[in-house]
Amino acid sequence: MEKLTGALLFGQSGGPTSVINASALGVFEEAFKHDGVITGVYGAAHGIKGILFDELYDICQEDRGELALLRNTPSSVLGSVRYKLKPAEEDDSDYRRILEVFAKYNIRYFFYNGGNDSMDTCYKIGKYLADHNYECRIVGVPKTIDNDLFGTDHCPGYGSAAKYIATTCMEIARDCKVYDQGSITIIEIMGRNAGWLTAASVVASHKGWGPDLIYVPELPFDVEGFVDEVKDVYLEKGDCIVAVSEGIRDREGKYISEYHKNISRDCFNHIQLGGVGHYLSTLVKQSFNAKVRAIEFSLMQRCAAHLASLTDVEEAYLCGAEAVRAALNGKTGIMTALERQPGKEYKIKIKEMPLEMVANTEKKLPEIYLCSDRHFITDKFLDYVLPLIKGEARPPFEDGVPRFATLKRVRTR
Amino acid sequence: MEKLTGALLFGQSGGPTSVINASALGVFEEAFKHDGVITGVYGAAHGIKGILFDELYDICQEDRGELALLRNTPSSVLGSVRYKLKPAEEDDSDYRRILEVFAKYNIRYFFYNGGNDSMDTCYKIGKYLADHNYECRIVGVPKTIDNDLFGTDHCPGYGSAAKYIATTCMEIARDCKVYDQGSITIIEIMGRNAGWLTAASVVASHKGWGPDLIYVPELPFDVEGFVDEVKDVYLEKGDCIVAVSEGIRDREGKYISEYHKNISRDCFNHIQLGGVGHYLSTLVKQSFNAKVRAIEFSLMQRCAAHLASLTDVEEAYLCGAEAVRAALNGKTGIMTALERQPGKEYKIKIKEMPLEMVANTEKKLPEIYLCSDRHFITDKFLDYVLPLIKGEARPPFEDGVPRFATLKRVRTR
Repeated sequence: MEKLTGALLFGQSGGPTSVINASALGVFEEAFKHDGVITGVYGAAHGIKGILFDELYDICQEDRGELALLRNTPSSVLGSVRYKLKPAEEDDSDYRRILEVFAKYNIRYFFYNGGNDSMDTCYKIGKYLADHNYECRIVGVPKTIDNDLFGTDHCPGYGSAAKYIATTCMEIARDCKVYDQGSITIIEIMGRNAGWLTAASVVASHKGWGPDLIYVPELPFDVEGFVDEVKDVYLEKGDCIVAVSEGIRDREGKYISEYHKNISRDCFNHIQLGGVGHYLSTLVKQSFNAKVRAIEFSLMQRCAAHLASLTDVEEAYLCGAEAVRAALNGKTGIMTALERQPGKEYKIKIKEMPLEMVANTEKKLPEIYLCSDRHFITDKFLDYVLPLIKGEARPPFEDGVPRFATLKRVRTR
Repeated sequence: MEKLTGALLFGQSGGPTSVINASALGVFEEAFKHDGVITGVYGAAHGIKGILFDELYDICQEDRGELALLRNTPSSVLGSVRYKLKPAEEDDSDYRRILEVFAKYNIRYFFYNGGNDSMDTCYKIGKYLADHNYECRIVGVPKTIDNDLFGTDHCPGYGSAAKYIATTCMEIARDCKVYDQGSITIIEIMGRNAGWLTAASVVASHKGWGPDLIYVPELPFDVEGFVDEVKDVYLEKGDCIVAVSEGIRDREGKYISEYHKNISRDCFNHIQLGGVGHYLSTLVKQSFNAKVRAIEFSLMQRCAAHLASLTDVEEAYLCGAEAVRAALNGKTGIMTALERQPGKEYKIKIKEMPLEMVANTEKKLPEIYLCSDRHFITDKFLDYVLPLIKGEARPPFEDGVPRFATLKRVRTR
């Protein structure tokens, strides 16, 4: 195979995770090993926007020790973006600009770290460049706490978020139950369309301190049924902990959080007040007399790098490093995906998924993980999730707080 | 000094912390060393209520290895309570009952772990028993995340909550700043009357990733001034992070969170929607066009034992163990308090504070920690707080989540 010599560009896209920078480190450190072939290593400021505005950082200027701290530094160190490219047939101005910038820096290796939309972006850019005879190997690196990416057993970012959710549910359950009067606690967890994150709370239940009821977007949400179910648990146990996905919807497909906004819009003019957890706690309070509390895991569930899963960090790194190795081996138009090997012991293998298969497909929680008798998650899910939250990957601490990476972010001229 | 032989009783009171069980362990393990003198070791279920209802656990029945896990187990393992004894002069029925139960089990050593109110409880019980010639040595063990306890440099529970707040602010600040459009983030932190917890967020700012503005209850809160200050930072920096105590009040002493409740009461009939952070984010949104998000640290800040401060855990244990040693040495009517030794290196000494001096006095954030030019915390505060959040005390992990203690809680007959 012919060696393709040129520079490497890496970008981060979409909502950040605790381990997205571990993938960046995997790309950078693998690239550094091939400096005869890879002639420059650049990072795009704010993903695709950094390319469009020619805002690139020269990663070779960074201190290698500081860069290594990326392994345990949360959030997108290069900056992220939510920007969807139009189809080139409709409007190719962005693509022309991308080609121009790629040519300026002789970018021949492009890696983009993100979810469904980002894989779509990779696919479109790859197609345009190929159509215009600009040789460039493009590999997607998976990332999303939502775990809804198609074609991979799971997604880097998910394991750490799941570990945060399971641990924090355990700690909260301990706290909720200290008084002898009962209480109801409603925990709102991220996930607009898929319940993978919320399902992870069942790990806490399995340890004896977790939610009694778990509501995910895969099942239509029935408001009256919800109140009845909470009441049943409360009357039986004296308290009740509920985990609920932000994205639960009614039978008509309307988000329950929209119910809330309709009310609040009347009072506050389009102002958002808490989320679905607050709305449901309101409902429960109206229905019967109990101490009710809503808790949102908010941004913490996706940035708590101090509690990251070692498995997740290592796999995130691997997905980045393998992307570079695959491209050097001539691969393009693929995403590095994780394939779980059969057998009792957890083992993964990197496989290559064609980008067009990954792009814009959502992976939902399969039915085997949903209980049929009540809103809860089956034990089968534990086999799936426990290996993903295994091990603790901790940043070094300094002055009692994590020591995260701070890059120089030297701009290219 | 005459040896007082009899049983020991320990109770936990008030809101739990990440390290309250470390104090329990300190009491229990020290007691076990003196089994010739201390003839039984009991834990009261739900503090003073457990005494009134004769619901005690026999701690000697517990497995010592499981008990040792209390060091890193959050929340009150014996159950907690919020119950204020009336003055005995008004109504002595509770006191008579306490004397009865103490006599039944020959309780001669009583340790109560809590904040201001609990020290008041200890003091009243001690006085009543002395007046009725029942010899019992009573020592308070300090506990509160709020750090508002008088007579001690700081309070077990505070360091771990402060560490959680500093770390989580750093992680959130990383997450908030990934997009190139600006945002405003308002973080609500516990503290009804004292700003110690909220002040700890300045550690994150000091590391370059933390709040730009910090509002504590020690200064009256001015709504218009707040919006202006946020706007100034936002216009200058492109984003703004605010840390705010739940207990901020206006010049008339009215809680800002009450403003919110007044509005929500109109719309929802007495329903509580989020807290002061949500209210302030509403205000900011109304005033200018920006992405605004409110985040509540909620229960997590007081139960995140996975992120506890090693200094805090060790001091919590010490306060428990020293309480037993002091009582064995004939002391009663005191609380074990922490005295910071002069000198550059952080060192504490246990001192004995008379209960009547501690009871019902609140310690506020002193003026030297408050900036005069804007709402922020001075660097002087770092000297105070950094030693308290130092070191990481982590529970063992099993299946990717913490392995906390689960006691048998064997009831006495």
